[in-house]
Amino acid sequence: MKVIGIVGLGTMGVPMAKSLLRAGFEIVVSGRKSEVVAQLVEMGAGSAVSPADLARQCEAVLTMLPADKAVIDVVTGPDGIANGGKPGLVVIDSSTVSPSTSKRMAEELAKHEIEFLDAPVTGSEPQAVDAKLTFIVGGKKQIYERCKPLFEAMGKGSFYMGSHGAGTYTKLSNNTISAITLIAFVEGIVMAAKGGVDPERFIEVISQGGARSGQIANKGPKILQRDFHPNFATALMYKDLGLAAEIAQEMNLPVPALAIAREMLKIAIAKGYGRQDVCSVIKCYEEWAQVEVSK
Amino acid sequence: MKVIGIVGLGTMGVPMAKSLLRAGFEIVVSGRKSEVVAQLVEMGAGSAVSPADLARQCEAVLTMLPADKAVIDVVTGPDGIANGGKPGLVVIDSSTVSPSTSKRMAEELAKHEIEFLDAPVTGSEPQAVDAKLTFIVGGKKQIYERCKPLFEAMGKGSFYMGSHGAGTYTKLSNNTISAITLIAFVEGIVMAAKGGVDPERFIEVISQGGARSGQIANKGPKILQRDFHPNFATALMYKDLGLAAEIAQEMNLPVPALAIAREMLKIAIAKGYGRQDVCSVIKCYEEWAQVEVSK
Repeated sequence: MKVIGIVGLGTMGVPMAKSLLRAGFEIVVSGRKSEVVAQLVEMGAGSAVSPADLARQCEAVLTMLPADKAVIDVVTGPDGIANGGKPGLVVIDSSTVSPSTSKRMAEELAKHEIEFLDAPVTGSEPQAVDAKLTFIVGGKKQIYERCKPLFEAMGKGSFYMGSHGAGTYTKLSNNTISAITLIAFVEGIVMAAKGGVDPERFIEVISQGGARSGQIANKGPKILQRDFHPNFATALMYKDLGLAAEIAQEMNLPVPALAIAREMLKIAIAKGYGRQDVCSVIKCYEEWAQVEVSK
Repeated sequence: MKVIGIVGLGTMGVPMAKSLLRAGFEIVVSGRKSEVVAQLVEMGAGSAVSPADLARQCEAVLTMLPADKAVIDVVTGPDGIANGGKPGLVVIDSSTVSPSTSKRMAEELAKHEIEFLDAPVTGSEPQAVDAKLTFIVGGKKQIYERCKPLFEAMGKGSFYMGSHGAGTYTKLSNNTISAITLIAFVEGIVMAAKGGVDPERFIEVISQGGARSGQIANKGPKILQRDFHPNFATALMYKDLGLAAEIAQEMNLPVPALAIAREMLKIAIAKGYGRQDVCSVIKCYEEWAQVEVSK
């Protein structure tokens, strides 16, 4: 695979495109933001007038889009990838969408003899810029193997999880765990702080035992320093929890902690923290407890 | 400090007494289980007929009891420590009780010029046997310093957290975080497994990112191996979450995730998993989803 198309030139798509260029791939881009397209063309990218036109020129197309509807439009719309791609084309969707959308895209594209991988990523803008994303992939194993050089160009690793949808199931379950684990930390540290325990000392002590977590390691210092710059915005996590809640609904699986975490993020968004880091949810609890968790 | 009394010769108290003996302390014990007392006396311990009698013979008394009421009885009852201990005696309570009980005991004992530390532990029976407990201590700093050799004899470390109650606030907040983090993991992995993702692979992948936790590290292998032997029983965690819910109530602090975690453990207890490890709560979700998270 040499010529790669990229649809979705946002916060993530642009640095991913640059990583592919740096690794020596030829890329073709298409998007509404002409200045972003122009910048990439100046760096050597080709351009296309529509996803169909782009697909016609490529061996693989990477999509990095904000929501299910955008993916469905780009793949199956009148000017979509399905209507331009040659048989044998591989579509790699790194958007976070529902597994049912992933499965449906795989089926639609199969009608055109086009291959599909759901390949959502963990990591956000800084990891995209540093080519340190992790890809979590569902689809046919041999297609995954063929695309590995692309994942390596944009990230630090990739994991093959199983058939179509397995990547998105893993991603959404992962984010469900992250969000609830964050709420766990927030409820505990606000309670301790209100009880008079020094928050920094609290984090130091609990990080040595069974209560430790990636959320405490990542968000603890941000909270103590009152740094709510979004590494991962509240509104984005809220969106992912909505997708996770939908799949639990399809499974008839009660997920009370997921539901609570989602409602807490909704409260945070209602209070104006949607574009701040997801750890800004602690400010809701701090207001209720009338205590601040800081250094 | 040379002569240490121990009240509460249960799963934890007995190995803690043995650790003190091994470290060269003289110990005096008192308890209802005569065979346990006899075993310790054979190893060199002195014995007493009541907490008051025991306190009279000692420089420090360690209490390791199952609930607030037992601590209150042993400390302030007619035959209690307060009525036997000499001025300057130090009472170290390693039971997990509410901070309000810790503060009340400190006040009652102060009337008799007896010092008090709340010093709950993290770690359970295996850590008690191996003298690898961690003590989380509230009270006067200089009293904590005097008692450090005792903590070192029974554990791998101790943390001074602040004034009376700070040890119990930290412990209960810590366990709140552990319990919710466990539920986070359980909801996520059951969803992934129901979606067709291999659970062992799922754990491997998520353990490398922000969803990682001590709960996944500790309970993941147990769940995969269907090993529900109690390292920490569901009923005990349920009790601790009850104490945590009480302190949140006193603070007027909404803790929806704590409430949900507690209800989930209540469901597990209702289904007969009270004496199994707290991770047996996953069996509730597995039944709902009709899927088993195993190797």
